[in-house]
Amino acid sequence: MTDLSSPYSTLFTGLSAFPLTPIRDEAIDEAAYAGLIGRLVEAGVDSITALGSTGSYAYLTPDERARVARLTVDHAAGTPVFVGIGALRTREVMSNVRSAEAAGAQGLLLAPVSYQPLDEDDVFELFRTVTSATELPLVVYDNPGTTHFTFTTDLYACLAKLDGVASIKIPGSAMSPTDFTAHVERIRAATGDEVTIGISGDAFGAAGLNAGCDAWYTAVGGTLPAPTLAITRAASNGEADRASNLSAELRPLWDLFAEFGGSLRVTAAIAEHLGLVAPQPLPLPILGLTDAQKGKVAEVVERLGLT
Amino acid sequence: MTDLSSPYSTLFTGLSAFPLTPIRDEAIDEAAYAGLIGRLVEAGVDSITALGSTGSYAYLTPDERARVARLTVDHAAGTPVFVGIGALRTREVMSNVRSAEAAGAQGLLLAPVSYQPLDEDDVFELFRTVTSATELPLVVYDNPGTTHFTFTTDLYACLAKLDGVASIKIPGSAMSPTDFTAHVERIRAATGDEVTIGISGDAFGAAGLNAGCDAWYTAVGGTLPAPTLAITRAASNGEADRASNLSAELRPLWDLFAEFGGSLRVTAAIAEHLGLVAPQPLPLPILGLTDAQKGKVAEVVERLGLT
Repeated sequence: MTDLSSPYSTLFTGLSAFPLTPIRDEAIDEAAYAGLIGRLVEAGVDSITALGSTGSYAYLTPDERARVARLTVDHAAGTPVFVGIGALRTREVMSNVRSAEAAGAQGLLLAPVSYQPLDEDDVFELFRTVTSATELPLVVYDNPGTTHFTFTTDLYACLAKLDGVASIKIPGSAMSPTDFTAHVERIRAATGDEVTIGISGDAFGAAGLNAGCDAWYTAVGGTLPAPTLAITRAASNGEADRASNLSAELRPLWDLFAEFGGSLRVTAAIAEHLGLVAPQPLPLPILGLTDAQKGKVAEVVERLGLT
Repeated sequence: MTDLSSPYSTLFTGLSAFPLTPIRDEAIDEAAYAGLIGRLVEAGVDSITALGSTGSYAYLTPDERARVARLTVDHAAGTPVFVGIGALRTREVMSNVRSAEAAGAQGLLLAPVSYQPLDEDDVFELFRTVTSATELPLVVYDNPGTTHFTFTTDLYACLAKLDGVASIKIPGSAMSPTDFTAHVERIRAATGDEVTIGISGDAFGAAGLNAGCDAWYTAVGGTLPAPTLAITRAASNGEADRASNLSAELRPLWDLFAEFGGSLRVTAAIAEHLGLVAPQPLPLPILGLTDAQKGKVAEVVERLGLT
């Protein structure tokens, strides 16, 4: 676990919930978004990360992103808010830093979004530029499925030395508990005790927390905070088996993620089924699930009592 | 070869040159860009595709893209201009269609840019939406290295049936001449005689043209039109060996592309060495080549007489 004397350490621990940014008629559905944030506050999540991948950050204009950042803080009722600032171009990343600061965010999340493949020097310099220009602590967002950039542990170590880097969001992976613990320990040895490590990939949340991760950066937790919080609290209380069992109960949900190409489309369908967002809340060209697929999602949600 | 009775067929044949969009102090270097377009006109390229991957389209705002489209047409002196309209969100794609139309473009180029992975239905619907909303003919841009979307020949066939789809830009690949010809014939059988097939991946230009492609969509040709035109003219005159030999003479250039991660950074370094653009013309976070790498590029440019 991370050294609790670090000024950031408690901020970037526990459950950070990633809400959808629901779209309606090509604009942000602000009423639905406020409702999603209210649910997270009521559930007692440890932090809210607005404009993560689940929040469709890459599809929004700088003005829309500024608006979402402000809406989040306005409805967070004191729950810490982190804001995703990633963009293809450094110029737009810096613009997003400024709007997140102005909104009152307590942290930033940055992925090396790419069109042309980036190399390690490009990515290091991007993070150096951002952290040297803001006082806000930053989460390094390693999401190879969307950025197509592969971090090495050596790069983690270089980034962890930058003032302001407070946490690393690592991808989930199907490893044995022993291998997972060794994996987290290797990263910890490279990044030091002042940077927390957060797991993503919702199916791997319990395994990651049991393996020593300090935080769970969860996509589905932005829509279903209660069951993901139960897993997080069990793990942080040292009840590893209970955390694993709670996650195993959600296996039909994780299977849908695997079957339907990741968490985003399924999470959107869950939110739609629960009446939290209008139909088709994702930005085009992403069509979302078909009606038949949505039916399967609804069946799982009802069967698992995720309402 | 494509049926020349199609209204589009001559437009989307021969050499289409993809110029850089040079950046200077984070803004578009309009004087340098005008110079690049002038070079292409003087060389006699068959068309100019503005805002391709080489033109850094994904990194520019809608306003910047409108400006580049207009600058291109203004300086093209009647050479047909195609404009890349791809963006992460369909809403922005449509905005780019309108600005390309307003600028006087004669064609559009559309890649399925992704952050969240797209499926075939998403991509088909994107192309259907665009082609049903414009009279301009469209090039389907298959660039898996940047979009991370893999087209199937079946999807090519579905897209070719859309009114307005006029050409398909296929990625290059290292195949034997016999296999390459069979590959192009398979695509042609699926897409019909009214849609041209263009090769990309500069090292594969001669091989693609010799295998029956109608066009070469060339990145380096946007900066070095003369040697790429010589290859194109040889191939279209049926001088396959001469086209292959001319391409083989450029092998040290193709090797640099392979060594330095693709054509973009090398092409930028060539343009810089030739004094066509200011240093560091690429949008950050792309740093471009190191000084040592630029030295190798300059050496090859001089040795091959590419000035």
